[in-house]
Parts: sequence; C-alpha cells; structure tokens
Amino acid sequence: MNVRSEHDLLGDRDVPAEAYWGVHSLRARENFPITGTPISAYPHLIEALAAVKEAAALANEELGLLEPVKAAAIVGACREIRQGKLHDQFVVDVIQGGAGTSTNMNANEVVANRALELLGRAKGEYAYLHPNEHVNLGQSTNDVYPTAVKVATVFAVRGLLDAMSVLQDAFAGKAVEFRDVLKMGRTQLQDAVPMTLGQEFSAYAVMLDEDRSRLAEAVELVHEINLGATAIGTGLNAPAGYAEAARRHLADITGLPLVTAANLVEATQDCGAFVQMSGVLKRIAVKLPKVCNDLRLLSSGPRAGLNEINLPPVQAGSSIMPGKVNPVIPEVVNQVAFEVIGNDVTITMAAEAGQLQLNAFEPIILHSLSESITHLRAACLTLAERCVVGITANTEVLRAAVENSIGLVTALNPYIGYSAATEIAREALATGRGVAELVLEKGLLPADRLATVLRPEVLAGGSGPR
Amino acid sequence: MNVRSEHDLLGDRDVPAEAYWGVHSLRARENFPITGTPISAYPHLIEALAAVKEAAALANEELGLLEPVKAAAIVGACREIRQGKLHDQFVVDVIQGGAGTSTNMNANEVVANRALELLGRAKGEYAYLHPNEHVNLGQSTNDVYPTAVKVATVFAVRGLLDAMSVLQDAFAGKAVEFRDVLKMGRTQLQDAVPMTLGQEFSAYAVMLDEDRSRLAEAVELVHEINLGATAIGTGLNAPAGYAEAARRHLADITGLPLVTAANLVEATQDCGAFVQMSGVLKRIAVKLPKVCNDLRLLSSGPRAGLNEINLPPVQAGSSIMPGKVNPVIPEVVNQVAFEVIGNDVTITMAAEAGQLQLNAFEPIILHSLSESITHLRAACLTLAERCVVGITANTEVLRAAVENSIGLVTALNPYIGYSAATEIAREALATGRGVAELVLEKGLLPADRLATVLRPEVLAGGSGPR
Amino acid sequence: MNVRSEHDLLGDRDVPAEAYWGVHSLRARENFPITGTPISAYPHLIEALAAVKEAAALANEELGLLEPVKAAAIVGACREIRQGKLHDQFVVDVIQGGAGTSTNMNANEVVANRALELLGRAKGEYAYLHPNEHVNLGQSTNDVYPTAVKVATVFAVRGLLDAMSVLQDAFAGKAVEFRDVLKMGRTQLQDAVPMTLGQEFSAYAVMLDEDRSRLAEAVELVHEINLGATAIGTGLNAPAGYAEAARRHLADITGLPLVTAANLVEATQDCGAFVQMSGVLKRIAVKLPKVCNDLRLLSSGPRAGLNEINLPPVQAGSSIMPGKVNPVIPEVVNQVAFEVIGNDVTITMAAEAGQLQLNAFEPIILHSLSESITHLRAACLTLAERCVVGITANTEVLRAAVENSIGLVTALNPYIGYSAATEIAREALATGRGVAELVLEKGLLPADRLATVLRPEVLAGGSGPR
Amino acid sequence: MNVRSEHDLLGDRDVPAEAYWGVHSLRARENFPITGTPISAYPHLIEALAAVKEAAALANEELGLLEPVKAAAIVGACREIRQGKLHDQFVVDVIQGGAGTSTNMNANEVVANRALELLGRAKGEYAYLHPNEHVNLGQSTNDVYPTAVKVATVFAVRGLLDAMSVLQDAFAGKAVEFRDVLKMGRTQLQDAVPMTLGQEFSAYAVMLDEDRSRLAEAVELVHEINLGATAIGTGLNAPAGYAEAARRHLADITGLPLVTAANLVEATQDCGAFVQMSGVLKRIAVKLPKVCNDLRLLSSGPRAGLNEINLPPVQAGSSIMPGKVNPVIPEVVNQVAFEVIGNDVTITMAAEAGQLQLNAFEPIILHSLSESITHLRAACLTLAERCVVGITANTEVLRAAVENSIGLVTALNPYIGYSAATEIAREALATGRGVAELVLEKGLLPADRLATVLRPEVLAGGSGPR
Repeated sequence: MNVRSEHDLLGDRDVPAEAYWGVHSLRARENFPITGTPISAYPHLIEALAAVKEAAALANEELGLLEPVKAAAIVGACREIRQGKLHDQFVVDVIQGGAGTSTNMNANEVVANRALELLGRAKGEYAYLHPNEHVNLGQSTNDVYPTAVKVATVFAVRGLLDAMSVLQDAFAGKAVEFRDVLKMGRTQLQDAVPMTLGQEFSAYAVMLDEDRSRLAEAVELVHEINLGATAIGTGLNAPAGYAEAARRHLADITGLPLVTAANLVEATQDCGAFVQMSGVLKRIAVKLPKVCNDLRLLSSGPRAGLNEINLPPVQAGSSIMPGKVNPVIPEVVNQVAFEVIGNDVTITMAAEAGQLQLNAFEPIILHSLSESITHLRAACLTLAERCVVGITANTEVLRAAVENSIGLVTALNPYIGYSAATEIAREALATGRGVAELVLEKGLLPADRLATVLRPEVLAGGSGPR
Repeated sequence: MNVRSEHDLLGDRDVPAEAYWGVHSLRARENFPITGTPISAYPHLIEALAAVKEAAALANEELGLLEPVKAAAIVGACREIRQGKLHDQFVVDVIQGGAGTSTNMNANEVVANRALELLGRAKGEYAYLHPNEHVNLGQSTNDVYPTAVKVATVFAVRGLLDAMSVLQDAFAGKAVEFRDVLKMGRTQLQDAVPMTLGQEFSAYAVMLDEDRSRLAEAVELVHEINLGATAIGTGLNAPAGYAEAARRHLADITGLPLVTAANLVEATQDCGAFVQMSGVLKRIAVKLPKVCNDLRLLSSGPRAGLNEINLPPVQAGSSIMPGKVNPVIPEVVNQVAFEVIGNDVTITMAAEAGQLQLNAFEPIILHSLSESITHLRAACLTLAERCVVGITANTEVLRAAVENSIGLVTALNPYIGYSAATEIAREALATGRGVAELVLEKGLLPADRLATVLRPEVLAGGSGPR
Repeated sequence: MNVRSEHDLLGDRDVPAEAYWGVHSLRARENFPITGTPISAYPHLIEALAAVKEAAALANEELGLLEPVKAAAIVGACREIRQGKLHDQFVVDVIQGGAGTSTNMNANEVVANRALELLGRAKGEYAYLHPNEHVNLGQSTNDVYPTAVKVATVFAVRGLLDAMSVLQDAFAGKAVEFRDVLKMGRTQLQDAVPMTLGQEFSAYAVMLDEDRSRLAEAVELVHEINLGATAIGTGLNAPAGYAEAARRHLADITGLPLVTAANLVEATQDCGAFVQMSGVLKRIAVKLPKVCNDLRLLSSGPRAGLNEINLPPVQAGSSIMPGKVNPVIPEVVNQVAFEVIGNDVTITMAAEAGQLQLNAFEPIILHSLSESITHLRAACLTLAERCVVGITANTEVLRAAVENSIGLVTALNPYIGYSAATEIAREALATGRGVAELVLEKGLLPADRLATVLRPEVLAGGSGPR
Repeated sequence: MNVRSEHDLLGDRDVPAEAYWGVHSLRARENFPITGTPISAYPHLIEALAAVKEAAALANEELGLLEPVKAAAIVGACREIRQGKLHDQFVVDVIQGGAGTSTNMNANEVVANRALELLGRAKGEYAYLHPNEHVNLGQSTNDVYPTAVKVATVFAVRGLLDAMSVLQDAFAGKAVEFRDVLKMGRTQLQDAVPMTLGQEFSAYAVMLDEDRSRLAEAVELVHEINLGATAIGTGLNAPAGYAEAARRHLADITGLPLVTAANLVEATQDCGAFVQMSGVLKRIAVKLPKVCNDLRLLSSGPRAGLNEINLPPVQAGSSIMPGKVNPVIPEVVNQVAFEVIGNDVTITMAAEAGQLQLNAFEPIILHSLSESITHLRAACLTLAERCVVGITANTEVLRAAVENSIGLVTALNPYIGYSAATEIAREALATGRGVAELVLEKGLLPADRLATVLRPEVLAGGSGPR
C-alpha cells in the first residue's frame, strides 16, 4: 500500500497515500472501533460541515486573515463535498469521544487535502495549506461541530415535516371518505357513545397537524448557532467581526435564517435545543404508536376481533398460518417510536452530563437525534403510503354495533335522567335486549321522540359542539 | 359511627353521615389503596375542579337547563371549595383507575352534599340535587377532568416560573459580582482557555432564562381545554352553546385566557400538551443538575479539589468526619432532577397507552406532572436562597491557575501558528515551565507583544464576539 | 414554645424542647423543603435504622468501646423505635442532599435523646450521651445508611413477594376453572389458532412465578452490607472485629442472613444491588401491564368488543354514561407499572451519578425504590382480590369464534399443505364461508378425517408439546 | 435484469434470478425501508437462524416427516450459512413489522433456494422443496425467531463477558501497581479520609467482577427456548417428540445447554429474559460511566485540575488548543453507556407492548439488545487497551494532598472526640494551617502518638476491616 507520513502531537504515522483524511482521522478510527458505522452515514452532517468550513474560509478571507488563493481552494473543496463527491472520506465512527473533535478534524483533513490538490499540490503537503492553521482558522470544534449538527438537523427535520404532512393528508382523506360511517366510540375499551369513523380519522389528522406545529417551533430554536465562540465561547482567536461574517456566509450557503446566540459562553456548553428537539420527537413517538395501536385494534379479526376496518394486505403474515395477514406496517411504526423514546433517554443523559464550559457528549446526541428523525420520517411515509391510503371500512359491522349498543342510553340522559337510564342499561345488559325496545316498553319516551333523539347525526354530535 | 345509605349501579352502601363524599368515593377508596395519598395533596387540582363545576353550573343556568336555585347552591359550594374549606373531603387516591372518574365523582359528591346543605337539605338527599344529574350536568369525566388538570397545571407552572426567576436573578447577581475574576475555562475537564467567573455564572443565568421561555411557551398549550366535549368529544348531551358558555365562565373564574380546542374528539383523547410540558420540565431537569454538578466541582476540596468557589455551609456535612461541609443543596437539586426525568418516562408511557377515544391513564400523568412541577419549584428556591446567593470566590486560586496554565498557548496561535504552539505546549507540560517563559526564551514573540496578547481582558474575550 | 439550645459546626440553634430530634435535623428540614413528606413515611427504613444503631451499640460494647450503661440506653431507645414508638420524630424530607447524612443524624439525635431520658437525663444533655460520639460510634453515614436501606428493602420486598403469590394463585385458580373453555388464540391481534382460556390464564400464573423467582434472586444481593466500612470503606475509626460483630448483631436483630461485602471500598460506592433490584421491579412492571392490557381487551364490549370474559364490576364507570362499567382495577395497575418504570430511570440516573468513593444520591434511590415496591405490592393485591378472582368467561362467545374461524385452516397444513390451505383461507375470507365446509366441498379431506383433525383437544395442543 | 416469478397470498412478483431470497423478502424490503441496515448486520442472528433450521430439519427427518434427501439439502444449505457463505442474502431491514416473520421467511427462502441448488434444481422451483412446507416444517416464526434471537444473544454475550474480563484484569493490574500510593479519598467531592490509589482501582475491578457475575446469571435465562411451540405455544402442527428432538439437535449444533420452556404458551408471549438481560446491561452501563467519570476527574488538569493520574494520550485533543489532550476513551465509553440505557427504555416499551399470545415487537428488542451488547463489548476493550493499561500516577501530588489535608482529623476522633476534632478542622480551614500542627500546639495528643495514628497504613485501613 502506498502511504504518506503525517505528524501530530503524538508523533508520526503513515496514512494511505490516496486518503484525503489524515493522521487525526487515522488515530480516531483506531480509538473508536464502536459501531463500525462511519459519519458518512449522515450525509446532512457532512454537507453541513463543508458549509461551515466554506463560510469560515470566506469570513477569514474577508477579514484579511486568509490569502484569497487558499480561501478559494478551501471553498472549492467544500463545494465538492457539498455535492457529495467525497463522502466516503468521512471515516470516523459515529460514536466517538472528544466532543466531535475527530469529526471536525476529519473534515479539516479532507478539505485541506482536496484543497491542496486544487492548488496543484500533493495530499499531505500541509506547509502549503494546513488542516488546523488554515481550514480550521478562527474555529474550534466547540463552535464548528454544534453549528454543523444544527444545520444538519434543520435539513433532516424538514424531511420529517414533509413526511408528516403526507401522513396527515392520508388521514384527512380518510376522514372525508368515512364522514358518514356511523360507529360506536369507545372509552377505556368499553362501548361508549356513537360517532363517525370520519371523526375518528379526523382526530388522527389533527394530532399530526399539532405535532407538526410543535416540531416546526422546536426546529426554530436549532437555527441559533455559536459559530465564532471558538473554544469556550469567549471567541479567543476569532477577530472582531468574524462571528457575524461567518454566520452571514453560512446563512447564504445554506439558505437558512441562522442567528448567532446572544451569549456564546452559554451557547457553547448548552444542549437545550437538542433536548427540546428530542422531547418533541418523543411527543410524536408517543402519538404515532397510539394511532397505530388503534389501527391494529380496529382491524383485529377478521372474525374474532373488532373487524371495523381493513388494512391493505402488504405481505403474507405468517410462516405457519395460511391466509393470515398481519398489520405489519403499524407494527414497524410502533417499533420506530419505541426507538425514538429510548433515544430521548440517551440524549437526556448525554445532555445532563455536560461539564463546565462544554458538553463532550454531543456525538451521541447527534447520532441518536439523526436516527430518530430519519427513522420517524421513513415510518410516516410507509404508514401513509402502504397502510392508511388503502384502509377500507366494514360499514355494516360498524352500523350494527351502534344499533345493538347499550351506549345509546347515554343520549337519553337529558330526557329520562341518569338514574332511570342506569336501570335501562342494567336490564339491557342482563337480558341481551335493546335499549330502544326497553325504553318504549316502559313508556319512558314516545316512539317518535325516541327516533328523533337517536338519529345518527344527533348521536355523532350534529347538534353538539365540535 | 353514624352513617347514611347511598345507592349506585352496584347497589347500596353506607357512608359516614358527616362525609361530604358519597358512595362512589367510598368504592374508589376501597378499589385504589395504592399510595395512601389522597387527591387533596394537590390543592391546585381541587380548586380547579371546583372552578369547572362552578362554570358548568353557570352555563347550565344560562342555557335554562338548571334551575337558578340549584345553580346558586352549586356555585356556593364550589366557592367554598375554592376557598379551601372542604379540601379534606377529597379522599380518593392520587393513583387511581377510571380515567379520573373517581376524582370527578368525588367532586360531584362533595359539591352536591354541600349544595344540599346550602339548600337546607341533609347530605344524601340527592332527589333535591344529584351529583350526576345536576352537578355533572352536561359534563363527563372525559372533559371535566382534563380541563381541571390543565387549569391546575397552569397555576402550578406559574409558581415554578417565579422560582426560576429567583434563581436566575441569583446567578445574574453573582455574574456581576464575579465579572472581573479571571479563571481557567475547561473543556472535557481539561484546562482550556481563560475566562471570567462572571462569564461562568452569567451562562447559568442565561440557561435559566431560556428554560423559562420554553416553559412559558409550553404552558400556553395547556390553556386549550375540551370542556363541552362530554364523553368522547362529540358533545353528546351538551346543548349548543354550552361549550362556549362554560369556557367563558371558567375563564372568568380563573382569570385565565382559556380556549376551546377546535376538534374536541381529538382534544379528548390527546395528551400531547402534557407530554410537551413534561418534555420541557425534563429539559429544565437536564440543565439544573449540570449547573449543580459544576457548583459541586468548582467548590470541591477544600484542599484536594479545585477549590475555586465556596458554597455557603448550611449544615454539618458528616456524622464521622469533623468539620466536613458538603454541597448538600446542589445534591438535593440533582435528585429532584432525576425524579423529574423519571417522571417524564412515566408520563411518556401513560400518554402512549391511550386507546381509541380516551386516555385512561391521565391520573398518573397528573400525579407525575404535579410532583415534577412542585419539586422543581422547591429545588429552585432552595438552590437560590440557600446556596447561590452565598457563593464566594477564591480569587487568588483562580488567578494563579490562569498564570500557570499551558492553555495560554492557544492565544498565541494567530501569532506563532498551531504547530509551533503545539511544541511549546509539549515542552511546558514535560518540564513544568511556563508558556510565556518558553515563548520568550525561543524568541517567538517580543516581550511587549506577548504581554499585550496575554492581557486578561483579551484572554477572556474582550476583543472577540460575545 | 419551649426550646433547648443545641450547638454544631455552624453555631447554636434552638430546637423545640419536646423534640427528640436536634440541631442537625432542624437544619436539614430547613435545607430540604422539597416534598413535605418526612422519612417516617418509610417505616421499614426507620426500623432498619434503629436496628443498625442497636447492632452498632452492642458491637461497641462488646469491643469495650462503649460503657455498658450507655450501650443499654441506646439499645433501649432503638427497641422503642423498632416498636414504632418514635416514628413521628423522623422528620427530615424523603428527598434530601447529603448522601443520607440527615437521615442518619436524625436517627442519631432521636436515639441519643431517648437514651438520655432512659438514663434519667434531659434531652440535649449530650455530655452524657452524644449523637455522634456514642450513638454513631465507629460508624459513618456511608455505611449506616446503605445498610439500613438494604435491610428496609429486604423487608419491603418480602411483602411484594407475598402479594405476587396471591396474584399468581388467583390466576392459577382461573386457569383450572377455565381449563376446558376453548377459544381463539391471537397473534398480532389477528385470529391465529385455537387454545383454551385456561392456557391463557395459566400463562399469567407462570409469568408471575418467574418474576417472583427473579425478585427473590435480586433480593439476595441486597443482603450484602458494608457496615464497618465507615467513611469510604477503609474502616477508619472502626476497630478490628467491629464490622463482624456489628454484622452478627444486626443479623440477630433482624433475623436476616446478612453478609459483609468482601471489598468495602467498592461496596461503599456501589449502588449495583439497587440498580439490579430496580431492574427486576421494572421487569415485573413490564409484565403486569401486559396482563392487564389483555384483561381489558378480552373484556372489551359488552357489545362492540371482544366480550370474551367479564371483570367483576367494582364501581360505576362513568359520570355521564349510565350502566357503563370500566376495567378500573387493571387500569390502576397499569399506572403503577408506568410509575415503576419511570422510577427505574430515576434510580438509573442517581446510580450513574456516583463519584469517586461515594454515591451521594442514595436518598432518591431509596425513595424511588420504596415507592416502586410498596405500590407494586398494593397493585398486585388489588388486582388479585378485586379483579382476577371474580373473572367469568363468556363460554359461548368463545366457542363460536373458534368454530367460525379461518384460523382452523392452520391445523390442516400437515394434510393439505401450506399452499392449498392458503387458497382455502383466501376463499373463506372472501365469501364469508367456513373452512371445514370449503375443505369438504373441494374434497381435500374426507369428513371423518376432518372431524378428527379439528377436535378441540387436538386444536388446543393435546398432541403437541406443552 | 434476469428475474424469476414467485407467487404468494398477494399474487405474483418478479425477484432477481440470482437472489436466494424470494417474494416474501422482496415485499418486506419494500414495506420496511426504515434504517437501510439489513439483518446481515447481525451475523450471530443469521448463524443462529441457520442452526435452528438445521435442527428442525434433522428433527423432522428423525420423526419421518421430511424425506432424507430434502433434509440433507436443507442441512447442507444451513451449514453454508453458518460458515458465512450467504450472509449477503439476508436483506430485510433490522427494524421490521411482523414479529420477525420477515426474518424467518428470509431464512426460509435462502435455505430453500440454496437447498434446491444442492438438489440440482434451479432457484424458485419450490415444487421440489418449499420455503414454508419443508424448510419451515413444524415451525412458526413465533418459535423459530425467539429461539434464534436467544442463541444469537448467548453468543454475543460471551463476547461481552470476555471483554469485561479484559477490562477487569486491566484495573486489577493497576490496583497492584498502585497499592502503596497514598491519596485522599473523597465523598461528595469533598476531601474525606486517606486511602490508596490501589484501593481505588481495586474497587473498579471488583465492580466489573460483580457485573460479570450478574451478566452470567442473566444469560442463563436466555438458554430457555420455545422451539416446538409453533404459533402460540400449543404446538399445533408439531408432532409429539418434535420439540424435544429439535432442542436436542439445536443443542448439539450450537454446543449450548438449551432447555425447552415448561409452559410454551407462556414462553411464546414472554419477553422477560430479554428485559432481564437488558436490565443487567443497563446495570453495567450505569457502572462503567461512573468509573469513566472518575478517570476523567482524577486526570483533570494538567494544571487547573486534580492531576492525580495521567491517561495515556491517544490523539491530539483539540483543533484549536495546541498540546491539549483529552480523555477521549472514557468519553466514548460514557456515550455507549448512554446508548445502552436508552436502549433499555426501548426494550422496556417493546416488551410491555406485547398482546395476548405474542409480542410482535421482538425485532426492535433484538436490534436494541444487539447494539447494546456489541457496543459495550467494543467499549470495554478500547477502555482496557487504549486507556487503563497505560494509566500512570502522579505520586507526589497525591501524597502532598494527604499531608495537607484537613480530613486527617477524622482519624483523631477516637482519641480527641468528634467535638474537639470539629474545632480543629474549623481552625485549620480558617487559618490554612495543618491538622497535626494544631493538635500538637493544643496539646491534644503527644507527638509520638500522633505520628502513630497518622501512619499511612493505618489511615488507609490497615487496622480496619477490608
């Protein structure tokens, strides 16, 4: 293997000659053999890192700290990365010590070596352009890394917001389709009072809409960056004007309305925005499985279950039971939700473990957050496209349950009182007879009045508040 | 014991003659002997329940559904409860099945029996005023209970917001006091670069300010109620106009800008606002122990620790080690934070367990949320008053560490480069010598220039971004 | 108010003359106004503390370090406490800083003052018998407190084990009662293959039996104590022979086979046994709600649900829906389980936060563990006594579902093959016809063979493994 | 692309001609596009699945249900898989719905198609050997999948146990090396009493030893399998003798002492062994970061920290601060621990979500468990090899802290009493003077006696219990 020698604080090491990464990345790979998954698994992060490096180079050039020719080379390298050309050079493990230093140095090394090539130099000729002295100029891992994680998170969340919209639309479509399908509502799994299947699906659409609003609010907080803070927020080594110039360039490059935190010391040690984001993801992960549990319950059967709705079959359900079709799509969504809820605990612990001027555990926060966002996105899309849009209703089953229900008696409270209604309910349950039949037999309400009271549109809330 | 007999779906039972609660509460006490703590432990909840019952009575009277004399009696009873006169009659356990039905029925029974007395009747004469038919008129546990929990939560959170302000002010005061105290900043527990102790404390004040903002946002969501939804959100048995009238009266009584949810079916089954609230409480519970850990670390010693600051002694620390004083206040805050984080998992699981038109597990959500809010409030106050305001700085220790530090070398990067600076750092560490001394010896910077670069106000960020 | 003056490291303070607690407890109450719940809420802990103090006094006397008359007075005071006579004097908050020092000092003060009275002295005359110098002789909070928590935990867990047995027996009784009730088994909420209701309940009994075994194993670990470790495990100030003597006396007093940890430095900082215990409690808390969810699902209806079993009604279910009866007992058990799972996270975080030679956060571990154990115990008992023993089966509903089921086709796999069986299942579902009917019509099996294959005892596993 | 057509319940689909997987795997890939990681990422699982299929074929052959030629072909295919030859054919996503059906069917299809080739047939010629009818004969996903997961878990855990031994040995080695290095012990981060650095490291070795014992106990439970249970535990379609024969063959193939569960209905729905396993992994994940936090704290500095020990430098620590070396190895271990703790919550939720005769969420349990075990293993190894073995002590710093310490006063309790010792401590702190000096000055102890009492071997526990 062809190699080149590189040098750092600990001495000399050979790295593969064709590698754009260098000695720091080499040591980091050896130090963190944890998951086997390199950071290139997070393309948003790689692109965000390149955007930060590009913005820093432009700011440094603008402030006269970096020669234009070097700045141009760095910018060129960053743009290639943002186009996806060098992702395979981002080789350090997604779980790593060092507060993101290895990720930042991996980026510094890749950018430097590609920039050297653009300058007509060989990889490793750091005398001409150095990973630390030029690519990382005026920067620290402690401002670069959180900034890149935030930019990456914003882009990932956008994908999730879109997927939630798709799912919300699927539920809303079903709400319209099922708007006249009368059914029994249930509380505590016991028959309660009538409603429409449309109302049931409409609630799911509204839930998603609210969750989307919360997520959109949480991602706003992620637009606040600490670029220019350098090591601990005091901005040591970043000249006056640098923070603002770098922010402006980064906003231009990414198209995001980024703002610089008012207090950079606080911003550099704080993981609050990630905790908040994870908390909202957890909120989504609490709601989604509830909906999926409902779908699985309503479609239970086909004969010894509720059998109210049918989920579209997407694969044979059983290796032993012929003809069985299982609710596999809601099931996979549930599992993603459990993962997200677990990730929230991981993020909580990592955030709580910050000490003094820095939280050294941001890499696991990034890792968990990225998984949560991308898996939730996939879950929403597969739920919408492979399940919800194909749901059908067993209208006759649903209507029969309403007509047969003891829960109808609740609608008679205003006319016969809670105590009398309780007696009717008790007798209906004991004898298996119908509520209407018993009310008529006892002369509690005349037949025409009873018919009016029990009209579907009344039962499902026609005259009540929505 | 004097008793009166009461009747319900399951038959007759004797209750103590002097009790304002009735047969439902009796059965609930027997059914849920879990914690031994009655719901009267949550005064905000009792008062909120009474406010809801009062608002409902006024709305029912306004709509002609409830005779004015009965409405007046109910309102009278509710006002007494809101004044704290009957709290001891709220006897059901804080952890209970039934989705809050027992809490609601406990309230219905207490209100009915006190109202009966106000009408000149004896307790238990429900023919004249009935817990279900009159006090609960047009209501269901499923709208009353979440509405009351929300009103109670708003009031509790206000107390927490105030306590956080007190703590924030304490940190801000120290930030001013320590603004000129130079010290070493640390990242990953390793010496990093200089800063001021004022900057360190200022970061804590800013963190709290941000957390307060998030909490204030989260509590906004809790102002959305589902009163008028009745059993499942269809408003069955609540006439047109009831929801709006009840909301209006409740807003008047509580002084809160309450709004009715746009989709009551969704609102009745959804626990999103509680999950969000708990998520923000967890965020606070992640930040607070980080601050407390810092305080404990910075005050470690007195001789074999960092010994940078002194926490005021508030009790003898050890039963065996004479003279030992421990950071007991930060320690108790840490523990409250751990409890809040655990409660968040409890709330998460309870919220996820909702099924179809209702979440039956709101009582444990209320219980956990109440504990989190009130304990956090107490923790913030004791931290502010018994610890932060009395903190003093060991200024000489702090300054000596800066002067002695290898981390000063970072400030020389722009002048001598990262590679040369690395060599200086290596030699300083190996020889125990000072950075400035080595730089001068090697002639890397002239003495006057070096002195300028190492001026405290520069080191702590005077020329950099804030 | 009559007062006496006491003195400690921080100076003089007045305490109520009649109080057995002293200046340390006074300060601790002021410092930790968190929950309002005093440690007397945990009688097992108070009694365990007294047992430890008694054992220490006897050991000290035996080793000639404590005069017999003083030892006798201390022992006398401890016995009164163990009889429950002074519990109200244990006043410090359940959530407290200081690693349990305040709990230990509260005990030292109460024991000292009661012992002084037994010696004919007044409370506060510490010159004759001192909380630290005599009651705490050879001890530190860091060995006394964990030892007492362990003893208390053992006793609490015994109560839980008994309650689990009661619940297990209730399920086992139902398993026998329902042993011949044929029903459809379900996987993924879809109809699967037949079984008996007895098998279903038997599984619950077995689950509980396994969980009991795990709990019994976990509590074994809690018998390992660190008494004699003093401050950090080095046994400083505890003479040779003390640890063994104290352990022996404590084992005698409590009747528990306690052992002293082999490495006291490790034992003093380690919370592993508590984490393990909480992990097993969480295991129970994962299984119990699964069972309760099943009970709620199987009893759903009465008309629009599965309606397979009936839970005994224990209270009217709804404030608005007459006649509704809800599964309130399983619901309350679910909520206790959620609390236990949340407590496990709290304990996890507290245990993880230990530093160097001690974990300062044991008070919240004790608090959470105590809640988990006592609430689980109450939940098991109420579930057994108020729900499981009264469950009845709707035998006809269950049998009809089997006869009507498509799932029967699985039993034909060995005779007609998976592919042919799949076609039968598909046709049965599409046409609403029965599996047996279709098999006969297509001549896939002769009628007598089919009848044999579909015999209930075969379907429910008569010929297969159990 | 060359394709072949396959058929299932939902109709016909083309699969790539060269694929060993078939129509079920195809649909599953489309249905579960969640993580992009195929199950081949878990080689232990793939090999365990092949072992189960091989054992089942041998059992079926033995019982006369499967022709020897077909059995031989299946066994041949399974052995190739166990040798790692077809891992890339295991293509379904690690997070999947369907309770593992897709994993099982993926295995059935790969085995069938490779067996067909061994029989001289083409892939897809299922008339000669069918994935369901022959490879899956007498099996269900519901017994095959949990059995395979258990076998895979046992093998993975063995790797973790070995890694923990390596780490334990590393700590034990340091305990010996540092056995005479006196230092101050700390409780609550405050100076406490003296100990040796060897005692400190010995405690870590003991902790790991205990954790290993707990893990070894937990993995015992994982040896209990439900093979032969088929769909719900009733063993439908598995003939008498099958369960025992299959277990015997599987034990032979794997070399594991597997046992069949006594109650297969219970075993089929129960995830208790996984919850227990995860609980113990969490216990390890609570202890490891405590140790790592200690290492980071003890090595803090180099000049403004405790600076008691030195971790070996493994990479340059900072992109901006020259010469800074960070504790990156302990940091990465902390993050793995946070992940494991989060995974435990995921597993908890998944296990709690089981319903009736099955838990449909075992795939996420497997996924989380696998991650936890393999990442912990990597973390232990990297911690041992790249950190612990290279730790050195700053002996002079440590000894000076003892000599300078106020904590020495504790050792004088038995001689001068707690009250007098408290006064000495107070004066030492206020004046900056030494304890010994003050004791002599006040004539509290003669010089020779004092010297004896303060001998290092006494202070560190020479005369006390260990």
